[in-house]
Formats: sequence, C-alpha cells, structure tokens
Amino acid sequence: MAVVLSVDAMGGDHGVNVTVPACIRFLKEHLDVSLILVGDRDTIYKHIGDNLSLYSDRIDVVHSTEVVGMDESPQAAMRNKKDSSMRVAINLIKQGKAGAVVSAGNTGALMAIARYVLRTMDGIERPAIAKILPAIKSDVCVLDLGANLESSPEHLLQFGIMGAQLMKAVTGKAAPSVGILNIGSEDIKGHEEIKKASALLKTSGLNFYGNVEGDDINKGTVDVIVCDGFTGNVALKTIEGVARMIGFFIRQEFNRSILAKIMGLISLPVLKRVKNTLDHRKYNGAVLLGLNGLVIKSHGGADAVGFYYALKQAYHEINAGVITMLQDYLVKHKEILNREEPRKELLEFKDLNML
Amino acid sequence: MAVVLSVDAMGGDHGVNVTVPACIRFLKEHLDVSLILVGDRDTIYKHIGDNLSLYSDRIDVVHSTEVVGMDESPQAAMRNKKDSSMRVAINLIKQGKAGAVVSAGNTGALMAIARYVLRTMDGIERPAIAKILPAIKSDVCVLDLGANLESSPEHLLQFGIMGAQLMKAVTGKAAPSVGILNIGSEDIKGHEEIKKASALLKTSGLNFYGNVEGDDINKGTVDVIVCDGFTGNVALKTIEGVARMIGFFIRQEFNRSILAKIMGLISLPVLKRVKNTLDHRKYNGAVLLGLNGLVIKSHGGADAVGFYYALKQAYHEINAGVITMLQDYLVKHKEILNREEPRKELLEFKDLNML
Repeated sequence: MAVVLSVDAMGGDHGVNVTVPACIRFLKEHLDVSLILVGDRDTIYKHIGDNLSLYSDRIDVVHSTEVVGMDESPQAAMRNKKDSSMRVAINLIKQGKAGAVVSAGNTGALMAIARYVLRTMDGIERPAIAKILPAIKSDVCVLDLGANLESSPEHLLQFGIMGAQLMKAVTGKAAPSVGILNIGSEDIKGHEEIKKASALLKTSGLNFYGNVEGDDINKGTVDVIVCDGFTGNVALKTIEGVARMIGFFIRQEFNRSILAKIMGLISLPVLKRVKNTLDHRKYNGAVLLGLNGLVIKSHGGADAVGFYYALKQAYHEINAGVITMLQDYLVKHKEILNREEPRKELLEFKDLNML
Repeated sequence: MAVVLSVDAMGGDHGVNVTVPACIRFLKEHLDVSLILVGDRDTIYKHIGDNLSLYSDRIDVVHSTEVVGMDESPQAAMRNKKDSSMRVAINLIKQGKAGAVVSAGNTGALMAIARYVLRTMDGIERPAIAKILPAIKSDVCVLDLGANLESSPEHLLQFGIMGAQLMKAVTGKAAPSVGILNIGSEDIKGHEEIKKASALLKTSGLNFYGNVEGDDINKGTVDVIVCDGFTGNVALKTIEGVARMIGFFIRQEFNRSILAKIMGLISLPVLKRVKNTLDHRKYNGAVLLGLNGLVIKSHGGADAVGFYYALKQAYHEINAGVITMLQDYLVKHKEILNREEPRKELLEFKDLNML
C-alpha cells in the first residue's frame, strides 16, 4: 500500500529551498511513497523543476496562500491564517488524504493547529513532543521536550505510555523500558510530582525502570525517558551544545599545525564515520505524540539532509502503525487512565508560547 | 603567605587511596601550600609513607574517628557523626586554621554540615552548588547544580550575584555576564519564576544578558548561568553523558579494523590533546557558594588526578579571595537584596536528600 505524506513545503528557516530537494530525494529512494506538497503553487513547481516529469504520478501540489512566520504567536497563526501551508497540510491528515504531516515550521503554531484540527487522543490530556536520540546501548525516546511547561504525575504517566508505544512500534521491542528523569537514583529523590508519577508508572503495567539521571539519556539505560517539557527541552539543547563543543575542539586540534592536519587527513575516514554515526540530521524529526494523527516536526534550521530524515521518520512511523497502536492501547488500558479529572484539557496558549 | 587547605581524607568512593596521592602531588607542585589531612591518623600516615620526610613541615594530620557514608542521610551524618573527617575538616575553616576545605564525600552531608558550621552569608538565603565548565568561548559557571530542588526568583538573583563574583575573582573579568537558563530566548518564554527572576536580575546592577538555552552552556554565551538545582543537575549530568557517548563512538570506530587502529595510532597525539582539553577531571570540583568559608566538593568517584584538580581549584579560589569579595559585595549591595522575607531560611533536609 502506498504511503502518503503531507509536507508543509513553506515551513522552516529555508522553506522550499530545503523541503523540495529533500522531497525529491525521498521520492527517488522510496518508490512506495506519494507526497503532497502544500504551499505557494508557483514557487513549489519552480523548485521541483524538471523532476516533475520523473515523479508526476507520486507528487501532488496543494496550493495555499499563507505562511506561518517562525516567530508568529501560535494564537495569531491559528486564528488568522486558516489558509497557511501548515494548516492545510494538517487538514490533509484529518481528511484521510495523508498518513502523516511533516513541517519544519513554528513549533508552537504546529502544536496549536494540530491539536485543534486533529484533537487529542482519548485518554491523553496533553500531547507531548518526543524525540528519538542516539545512545550507547540503543536509541532512546525522550518526552516531553517542550510542549508543556509543567507536567502533572498523570501527564508523566501518559508520556510513559505514549513513549513506550512509540518505541514498541518503531523498534519491535515487546516491552520498552521506561525511566523518569530525576536527580538521583533513589526513590526519595526529586520533586513530589516525580514521586507521584513514579508511583503511577509502577502500577501502570509498563516496564517501569525507575529514576534515571541526565547521563542515562545517552547511555541508553532505558528505551523511554519521561520528564516535564522544561527539563526535557534544556536537556535536548544541552546535548546539542556539548556535541557542537566537542566537534569544535576536535577540529581545532586537527588544525593546530601542519602535522596535526596530516594526521587529521589520514584518520579522516574514521572521523567521518564517527560524525556520521552521531549526525544530528539523522535524528531530525520530533513527533507530536497524543494527537489523532501523525505530526512530525523537523528542526526549523534543518538542511535538505535533515528534512529528508524527518520524512523518513514519518514514513517509518506510518508503516509501524504508531497512531493506531497507541489508540488501541489507550482503549484497552482505560482503567490506568481512569481519573476523576476531565480527560482533555483545554488548549493553553500560555504553554504554547514557550515553543 | 602560605595557603592552608583542609582535606577530608576519608571522603569519596576511594578515600585515602585517592586523596593522599593527590595531596602529595599537590604539595610537590605548590610550594606555598600546607595541607591538613583529616581522618584516621594511622591510615593516613600509612598512605603518606616515605613522602612524610619530604613534606613534614607542610603536612599536618588531624585525627577523627568517624566517616560519613556516601549513602548516609545528611541528617544522620550531621546529628550522629560529630567526629567525622568531613565535619572536623570543616571545623578547621571555622576555626581559621585553613582557607578552604576539600571533600569528595557525600554532597548532601557536606552541604548540611558546612551550612550548620559555617552559616550562610548575610544576604544569601540558600547556598548553591556551582561548577565551572568548559565552553567554546570561555569557561562558564553554572549554578545551582542540585543544592535546591526549587528556586524562587530571589534565590536565582542571589545565584547570579554569587556566580558573577566567583567568575570575577577567578577570571579577572570586571563584569561577568549572567544568563538565566530557559527554553527560548524571548522574554515571554518560561515559568513565572524565571520571568520574575529576570526582572530582578535586570535591575540588579549585574551584567545581565537575559535568557540562555541548553546549548548556550557549552557555547559559552555568558560567563554565568543561573538555574534551579533540578534543571542544573540534569544539565550537568547530561553533559557528562554526551561526552562519554561521543568518546565511546570515537573509540569504537578506531577499533573497528586494523586499518582504523593504525589511523588511530597515527592521530593519537591530536586525539589525546582533544581529550586533555576536555578532560572532566580538570574541571573536577564544585563550590558550595554562599557560606562563610570556601567548601569545594570533589566528585565522589574522582581519581587522584581529579582530586588534585579539586585541590587546585580551592587553592586558586583562596588566592582570588572569593569569599571576602563576595561578602564585601553583599554588604555594599544590600539594597538589591532588601526584601521583607527573612534573609536566611532554615536548613531543609528535604532538599538535601536529593544530593
């Protein structure tokens, strides 16, 4: 069965300059994929150029007249730009015309619009942003990365369920292990919220590992790490910063002298392999989990390689059946989520402003 | 003038096996230093061995009968172990016999005892744990790293003052820049507490930069980054984890084949220089800032090289006059800290349990 992806072609810092080349490469390498590119028709066709003849049967362009600005407030984007490339691309999911949407646009607007159009899954109060990161043992899924400023114990439990189902679908592991990000391994450590969340996770039926610490992220101690969006966002960006610093010092040392440069040239194949293993572009693409539809957020500054990998992630997650797997799980495990509080919270713009 | 350091010789995962060799090396390389080693006299002398004859005029051993366990609760350590090596070593500061204490022992106990013995500085409500980390631009001081689970805007302001004075003393910069760790650069981002803290920092007279994000830590965007202890602790450990993962993948790739091994051997001098630049042992030693005395916490698992650098940090910070500089600043800038709430909060063991 053909996989259809809806692409917000105008989103991101570089718009069509990045999205279109990435789409062309993706079509070339994935013969069972059709893409719907949403945005200004003329601009998109211009960038597709001669490739159109090669992929005309698997490429579709849907015109839209507006673009959500990268710094635009989610409120404004949602209320005033009903014909934005982002919104029209999301609508295609809702209409069943595509299996996932990929956007490099404004995260807050993407979350607000996707939540409004697709609605939150039954049993989930707050969607979360999840990302799969490299680790020594095996990849790790961390959530929330910034959709929620604060997270209640119930939210953290829901993040655990969502992360575990995502990793189950993607890796095939029967029972992915779930840890909660804390500042010590002992049960007595951390905030009250974390202690309560741990108690919920323990009896959730998930493969709950317990507390993990910051260095467990890239160690790969567990398959899924749950945390509030503030902490997760800081940890994610900290990882980017450390990797950049180490890369900087490696380059600096190999440029220090002619001899060092020669050594660098000799070991280049190996250094390139290391770089390739850890290439952040290969891990580009966060999932907005908890919505009735697959929404993939590419890094706003991603290049064509990065955006290609965001498309690839969407493709894999459609094939893995992430959304139906999670929906089914939530229906079957209703009792875990049974609580007196209302199931679905209202969209809170104050949270989305942080994205 | 001779510098005197008080050393908790029994503290840390490896006790005297690490502390004594580090002390011997330190005495050898710093001729103006005297050390007071606190702990079991016989054990310490046994480990000093023949070196005693070389340094007998600059080495002193103070006997104590107890040791604080690495997992012991701060309460128990403080109430029941009045003759622990940690406590006796701290007492030497209070008595004016040493300019700083260095311990690799239990962080929570160290904070509890140091706070009880030395008291918090006037104007400071909560001491913080600060660490100087490597960054692309220049070293950065991050605090709090785990002394406080949550931090009020006033606490964050105080952290900013403490961090700036520390960096001023250590680097000689006239007005170190101060950033607040957040999840976006715009003023509207983040918790209410952070917004309030930003407002306080803006009018504090400090060189306030504004919001910084996780990746600014190792970029070195600012000289000082303030955050609550939970976030700081997660960020610090995340940094350790990323560095370890990258080291792991570099070793793995250079061990993949005989050719790769040869390439690794050829570029070894450069790789070693990179490793040396970023050697976490050279950055070992966190400062418990805000106490009337200089307390340096070495990583519990540090080896002799790491502990040596913790001693070196203590030595530099004594010479830089960190404590008096900060005390003077607080007296001169009383008005910034003038608030209705009580100046000094009670010691809260619930917070120390997290350390």
